[in-house]
Amino acid sequence: MKPIKVGLLGVGTVGAGTFNVLQRNQEEIRRRAGRGIEITMVAARNLDKARAVVGAGVEVTGDPFAVVNNPDIDIVVELIGGYELPRSLVLQAIANGKHVVTANKALLALHGNEIFAAAQDKGVTVAFEAAVAGGVPIIKALREGLTANRIASVAGIINGTTNFILSEMREKGLDFATVLKQAQELGYAEADPTFDIEGVDAAHKLTIMSAIAFGIPVQFDKAYIEGISQLQARDIRYAEQLGYRIKLLGITRRTQTESGEGIELRVHPTLIPASRLIANVEGAMNAVLVQADAVGASLYYGKGAGAEPTASSVIADLVDVTRLATVDPYCRVPHLAFQPNQMTDVAIVPMAEITTSYYLRVYVKDQLGVMADLTRILADAGISIDAVLQKEPGNQVNLDIIMLTHQTREKNIDAAIAKIETLPAVIGKVTRIRLETLS
Amino acid sequence: MKPIKVGLLGVGTVGAGTFNVLQRNQEEIRRRAGRGIEITMVAARNLDKARAVVGAGVEVTGDPFAVVNNPDIDIVVELIGGYELPRSLVLQAIANGKHVVTANKALLALHGNEIFAAAQDKGVTVAFEAAVAGGVPIIKALREGLTANRIASVAGIINGTTNFILSEMREKGLDFATVLKQAQELGYAEADPTFDIEGVDAAHKLTIMSAIAFGIPVQFDKAYIEGISQLQARDIRYAEQLGYRIKLLGITRRTQTESGEGIELRVHPTLIPASRLIANVEGAMNAVLVQADAVGASLYYGKGAGAEPTASSVIADLVDVTRLATVDPYCRVPHLAFQPNQMTDVAIVPMAEITTSYYLRVYVKDQLGVMADLTRILADAGISIDAVLQKEPGNQVNLDIIMLTHQTREKNIDAAIAKIETLPAVIGKVTRIRLETLS
Repeated sequence: MKPIKVGLLGVGTVGAGTFNVLQRNQEEIRRRAGRGIEITMVAARNLDKARAVVGAGVEVTGDPFAVVNNPDIDIVVELIGGYELPRSLVLQAIANGKHVVTANKALLALHGNEIFAAAQDKGVTVAFEAAVAGGVPIIKALREGLTANRIASVAGIINGTTNFILSEMREKGLDFATVLKQAQELGYAEADPTFDIEGVDAAHKLTIMSAIAFGIPVQFDKAYIEGISQLQARDIRYAEQLGYRIKLLGITRRTQTESGEGIELRVHPTLIPASRLIANVEGAMNAVLVQADAVGASLYYGKGAGAEPTASSVIADLVDVTRLATVDPYCRVPHLAFQPNQMTDVAIVPMAEITTSYYLRVYVKDQLGVMADLTRILADAGISIDAVLQKEPGNQVNLDIIMLTHQTREKNIDAAIAKIETLPAVIGKVTRIRLETLS
Repeated sequence: MKPIKVGLLGVGTVGAGTFNVLQRNQEEIRRRAGRGIEITMVAARNLDKARAVVGAGVEVTGDPFAVVNNPDIDIVVELIGGYELPRSLVLQAIANGKHVVTANKALLALHGNEIFAAAQDKGVTVAFEAAVAGGVPIIKALREGLTANRIASVAGIINGTTNFILSEMREKGLDFATVLKQAQELGYAEADPTFDIEGVDAAHKLTIMSAIAFGIPVQFDKAYIEGISQLQARDIRYAEQLGYRIKLLGITRRTQTESGEGIELRVHPTLIPASRLIANVEGAMNAVLVQADAVGASLYYGKGAGAEPTASSVIADLVDVTRLATVDPYCRVPHLAFQPNQMTDVAIVPMAEITTSYYLRVYVKDQLGVMADLTRILADAGISIDAVLQKEPGNQVNLDIIMLTHQTREKNIDAAIAKIETLPAVIGKVTRIRLETLS
């Protein structure tokens, strides 16, 4: 089957990331989607830069409408940003019967109702997983994963720039202006950071989640928006002393007012108990906490921005559309994620061959030289030690010696343990627990 | 349009939860799915108990094959548990052209390849979101949300019983046997807890995730399984002193061995650095951490078991199938989650009407009586104080008084602040930051 043809509008950070991930993982993606996904035409302001990204095989144009009106294009990916031009392009693509994938939260927060109505009329999909929380599939979770629930609230750290700034302010005790400058130098904040630091970007994303959670139209103009630029370092410090962290939170929630049911829709700095998982989301990471009646609390965490995380969501949307366009609806999503004729049979590795780190506890008679014996056995096996702890677990005679090793194959550690257990000073079996840094 | 008809096999905890949530949220679910979803027939061993759950309008039978062979049933929900009977029932349902939704991880880990092949042949869906991590939509995330990625590893806390036991052992310094007994009394552990504490349940779930992540068949027989029953309290203590937590982790990961590429598939107690988000998943909660090349690290967290969280996933699968059976594929998932003619327009609440708690910082001349004035103003406004902190922010003359309030309406706090700012001892504006407990 021929690849599905994609036209790309915008070859900036996310556009280039989308092209690169589609190229790099094309085999894996085709095995999942049941069909290749190919970017065949791109529109960019800087043609030379775009050509440098996409190479010679892809048509490059300066006119985005040439992509949108190209009858060979099945899906248009809109990664331009801004409001008016993308609105025209997306509406034109829909009018032409093309599916649209966009990462443009500003566009959807302001013109979503118009765009979705047009898409519904034409029977095409406008997919926008990438518009909220970058690589985190939160739109899918809210729109498909939690359909059984009456959703009570959605609260999210959905702007990486501000979360990075707040994390730095707290950890280093610095003031807002100083950290903002550093964030700009590191590329975590734009030259004009207004949309991020004043909460506008978070409000765009929250507006979209609010509509999905509660079945209401998008209504960005009703959102309350307060940013972090007025936050003082001492308030962060005092909050911490009281057991709280300050995060820029987007909150949307069902509420009862004196005049009946309503929806809260607000972005502002918020104290959260430090013990909550979401309070420990640091740096440029994003997380969304959903409260719903059947499932209770659930949380979705990951990178909220950047070329490849955002591309991950753009491409997930492309695969969704491709699966619909290609296969019997009921086999739309293969049971095991990959099309049944595209499974592989990579061998499961026996435990002896796995590589990890280890926690070892050796219970010994407190006898001179035992530590030297232990370290020699490990060194002979090529296993290096990361940390050592000695403890007296009750009586004053015998000792627990605890060692953390660096990575080694399990067969190596098992051989070393067998030798350790033959040492006369060692009592009983060695306790061995695997250790994963998960980094 | 007539409701889609569901036959339910098993009216135990999850079966009853599924029936109840479908009843309670039927309006919300119909607005999302575009069609009602109705359980019209149930099979149960205890007919009286089943009738007490489902009421008079639903046919109750002792013969599950009567459900599976009923031509009026569109979707069969299998919530019996075990291997052989469910296998026969599911295969028979598939042979009859019915879609199947199951929460049975044991069934899929052992017979998944056979069942999925049969479903593929008949063009029906076997959906199993509820089989892994209860209410957390991790199957959807892996199978649809991360399709752009080459997945490197999946590591999960996917058994609530063992995580509850490990959390209790660590927090209270108790040994395994004592905590297990408490967990059984609290209903967190079964009377025969073997499958949970020996890691078998986690290995079932991990086997399913491994197949989906890497496009390999399910192969439970190759999984390495080690439970927590041998874990000693002192190892948990020593690990903590070294900066680690011990969790029962299911890990599946691409790896390189001396003989080429392989897949690790293992469940065992694991030390994790205490600073990792997943190390802080406590009690009966579940979390799955995915590492993938484009998106990086992402984490999915929520309740892994229980009647309603599991029902949440069962019903999400029912909605998925219903959406496919009902509407134009490209409008399968409505853009804003609810069918376009089913949106509501609940009003967004003005900020003056929202209810939350507050952090107030009042900068004052260190003058006798100011605290009395502050508390009187708040008390007059019906606002109660949760905590107070006094700080000298630099010089020895003026003071920061920090107060955390209990919940109140924003218009009340704003009125109180306006009064506070008229006090002669108060310097400048009051700093007001909203506080959410997110509980």
